Amino acid sequence: MFVHSVFFWLHHPESQDDHTALRAGLESLKAVTEISTAYIGTPAETRRPVIDHTYDFALTLVFADKAAHDVYQTHPIHLAFVDKCAHLWERVKIYDAVG
Amino acid sequence: MFVHSVFFWLHHPESQDDHTALRAGLESLKAVTEISTAYIGTPAETRRPVIDHTYDFALTLVFADKAAHDVYQTHPIHLAFVDKCAHLWERVKIYDAVG
Repeated sequence: MFVHSVFFWLHHPESQDDHTALRAGLESLKAVTEISTAYIGTPAETRRPVIDHTYDFALTLVFADKAAHDVYQTHPIHLAFVDKCAHLWERVKIYDAVG
Repeated sequence: MFVHSVFFWLHHPESQDDHTALRAGLESLKAVTEISTAYIGTPAETRRPVIDHTYDFALTLVFADKAAHDVYQTHPIHLAFVDKCAHLWERVKIYDAVG
């Protein structure tokens, strides 16, 4: 099992168009068949000092193993997403975990 | 859908006993029936500037909704875990996402 957690901070979080465009891009990733499960979310209303709720979108992708993840990284659908959407985000933070 | 992503940094990452104790604690959480899916992992071997691989354990819990997550937060099994294991970690970072 390989869990790829990605958090996105938009350049313009006030732009509804940018939210819509990034969400559409994230949804497009679900077509990559190597992904076992995909979760797309936005910050919950939980507030505690240990919680980071400053991001705009969360993407959690579960893969069978690192090999499946590696296929995703260079998959044309993923590369098209980066090409089309990278200008929307100011930064991303990623945590990759194997279990 | 509610995804609760938690990253743990141990006080003593060099201690195999602490790794074992925290993993056992994390595994105990799976008994909480409100959890739809639980993933427990350690840093993958991926290395890019945007990847944080400095943590020791990752816990990703998927709930049907925020209500199920809220039950988990005050569930006796979760409280027992915190009670037993909180001394093991130096810090935790949490991202809660709804989708």
